[in-house]
Amino acid sequence: MLVLQKYGGTSVADLDRIRACARRCLGVVEQGHQLVVIVSAMAGQTNRLIALANSLGEAEGSTAAAKGPYVVAAQRSPARDRELDQLVATGEKVSAALLAMAIMDAGGEAVSLVGHQLGMHTDRNFTRARITHIDHERIRRELDAGRVVVCAGFQGIDEAGDITTLGRGGSDTSAVAFAAAMQADVCEILTDVDGVYTTDPRVVSHARKIDRVSYEEMLELAALGAKVLCSRSVELAMKHGVPVHVRSSLHEGPGTFIVPEEPSMEDVVVSVVALDRNEAKVTLTEVPDVPGTVAALFRALGEAGIVVDMIIQNAAHQGHTDVTFTVPEAELPRARELLEGMSLPGGGRPAAILTDPGICKVSVVGVGMRSHAGIAAKTFEILAAEGINIQMVSTSEIKISVVVSERYGELALRALHDGFGLHQGPARAERP
Amino acid sequence: MLVLQKYGGTSVADLDRIRACARRCLGVVEQGHQLVVIVSAMAGQTNRLIALANSLGEAEGSTAAAKGPYVVAAQRSPARDRELDQLVATGEKVSAALLAMAIMDAGGEAVSLVGHQLGMHTDRNFTRARITHIDHERIRRELDAGRVVVCAGFQGIDEAGDITTLGRGGSDTSAVAFAAAMQADVCEILTDVDGVYTTDPRVVSHARKIDRVSYEEMLELAALGAKVLCSRSVELAMKHGVPVHVRSSLHEGPGTFIVPEEPSMEDVVVSVVALDRNEAKVTLTEVPDVPGTVAALFRALGEAGIVVDMIIQNAAHQGHTDVTFTVPEAELPRARELLEGMSLPGGGRPAAILTDPGICKVSVVGVGMRSHAGIAAKTFEILAAEGINIQMVSTSEIKISVVVSERYGELALRALHDGFGLHQGPARAERP
Repeated sequence: MLVLQKYGGTSVADLDRIRACARRCLGVVEQGHQLVVIVSAMAGQTNRLIALANSLGEAEGSTAAAKGPYVVAAQRSPARDRELDQLVATGEKVSAALLAMAIMDAGGEAVSLVGHQLGMHTDRNFTRARITHIDHERIRRELDAGRVVVCAGFQGIDEAGDITTLGRGGSDTSAVAFAAAMQADVCEILTDVDGVYTTDPRVVSHARKIDRVSYEEMLELAALGAKVLCSRSVELAMKHGVPVHVRSSLHEGPGTFIVPEEPSMEDVVVSVVALDRNEAKVTLTEVPDVPGTVAALFRALGEAGIVVDMIIQNAAHQGHTDVTFTVPEAELPRARELLEGMSLPGGGRPAAILTDPGICKVSVVGVGMRSHAGIAAKTFEILAAEGINIQMVSTSEIKISVVVSERYGELALRALHDGFGLHQGPARAERP
Repeated sequence: MLVLQKYGGTSVADLDRIRACARRCLGVVEQGHQLVVIVSAMAGQTNRLIALANSLGEAEGSTAAAKGPYVVAAQRSPARDRELDQLVATGEKVSAALLAMAIMDAGGEAVSLVGHQLGMHTDRNFTRARITHIDHERIRRELDAGRVVVCAGFQGIDEAGDITTLGRGGSDTSAVAFAAAMQADVCEILTDVDGVYTTDPRVVSHARKIDRVSYEEMLELAALGAKVLCSRSVELAMKHGVPVHVRSSLHEGPGTFIVPEEPSMEDVVVSVVALDRNEAKVTLTEVPDVPGTVAALFRALGEAGIVVDMIIQNAAHQGHTDVTFTVPEAELPRARELLEGMSLPGGGRPAAILTDPGICKVSVVGVGMRSHAGIAAKTFEILAAEGINIQMVSTSEIKISVVVSERYGELALRALHDGFGLHQGPARAERP
């Protein structure tokens, strides 16, 4: 069997943990499997390197504040982004070499492959490169020589031989891409949680680990902020049918398999309920109901890098309409400032800009919704029974999200979790 | 003009110093020159990475103590050395990317080249690779595009595309090798001293900076422990006739040029006097005077990695001889242990093993010695006038070294410095 394992930054955070990873790798080899490992940088190293680059730029008299890890102040340019990738990619090179050494020190055979040795070819979009193709000839050769192949995640090279990086979550993307290219039998994402749960165990103590979820459900969960796997790697796994196994790096127990949708999954109407507290609500009242007005609003927010999630527009009344939407709570001040300063097409202005950071979003997710009606109704009934008022609703084929007051968030999560029977096992449609 | 500059670890130790290097680079460009820069890792980073690798090995139950940076405990092997190089080479990648960014932030154009991008091809002797050839096509292309090319020092790749390192002093070697391959007009070694001095200014306050020294003299000085440039890079510069300029990274003043021997240099009989306090003396009395005995002694010391410097063997007397030699003071306990434990060919043993750490070596160096007799005699006279007893003597074509009691070391240095007129300018042979 060809096994691919990905170890995240916390799993290789120090030498003791690297040794633990090495022992785990040897366990896979002892079972007679071939093993390719993808590693992230040791926890904290990527941020340390990015901070170095940001500090360098800031002190040269830049005006823009550094915003988030990938927004470098100073003169951001493709040439500088090239250097940023060259810099940041060293983090994974360090952990790859250390893990390969640790495997040797524990009696195994290993080799680390980084940068140009990997065969991960990308375009030239530094800091967010797209994979163009994978040449796994060298990896194959090392595997056939009996070695564990430890690959630096997150990085590739472009046609000019320059180092590129795949952006946040890049090591997951590397792992799935190599698993797809090499037709690995399984792509194991080893992390600090046991797998995917029916809901947040910190809020609902009897949340259960799920054995199998579909790619589609995992995509919805990633969009809802689940940190276990980034959307891009799930999309890639779905596209190539890569079986992904999210499991703990601390013990050998099985975690959650992320797999193509299976017929039996349709029986499960709700797999997961999720709570997102980091949303805020914005309402613009009496917006002039002129074509293009709402489009202009959201284009302006988009250009400012503010991600709008749910949007509701009420029916127009006397040439005006109310627009309500949610943005990340941290972006609320910027969003308000931008909205107050902008002039709408036609020159009109909203009567008021109302903001409310005191809300949260509760979502129920399950592929079974596609074939089972009445889930929305049941969701509303469960919340109504608890006296929880619903402020906004949005739905996809396999998801219902509602916005409620933040103080009812945990109550709503518990009520939905138990109301859909997730405490007993996946909620199943009643069968004749 | 094509200028090559090498910045050492202390010159890029933090972001402020990297910015200072960037400004200095731009100064070269503003003078209309093309510029290739070789950087070391930020001070301390190489040792940090090596310590990580050593710690990893030690805790896995190794017995050998880690000895010096390149002696890794655990199971040292070519495969592990490969990983060590992969690991350690990241240090220069970080500083190269940061310096390239700093040049951009200061308004210039730059690109960093590392690992496989450099064109530095080596054999597969990890941790101490030899350069096989240099392909500077990419560097040329970047220069012609108007960029400062910042190259990671110390590293290359082998035929398989694996990262290798050139060993200690490797960035100097990289600098000279690129300067030779590209026929640079000058190879500037920017460092934290002003250049090469007639002697140690901490001991002799009126020591003078020397404008020009020959490769041969610099080689002797490197062998005597001068840290300004490693022997290997001087050898390489000599072989290819690369003009090297050792100068301060802190100011623009000229330093010392290291150049082919010039006719006028022969007039200077003594250029530098040097003091090495880190030697210890070992005397073996009444060693059996059997062929192969002395060879066996020094072979054993060599195999244990103990570098023997000066050796004196007295004339044999009644089938026995006395052997005296010097070793680095730090190695004295190991040398004594080894000598006490070894059996000589033929089974005999020395009557006694005497050790003396309280000695030092004073040397006078100058290419003029080749054409001027009497320098040894003058050296002995100067020391005798101060009442300093000479315990050992060794000479090369352009160097005389004497071992004296450690307490007379500084006195000897001052006496020789002034006795050869170095306080007034280079000691010159009297001309008719």
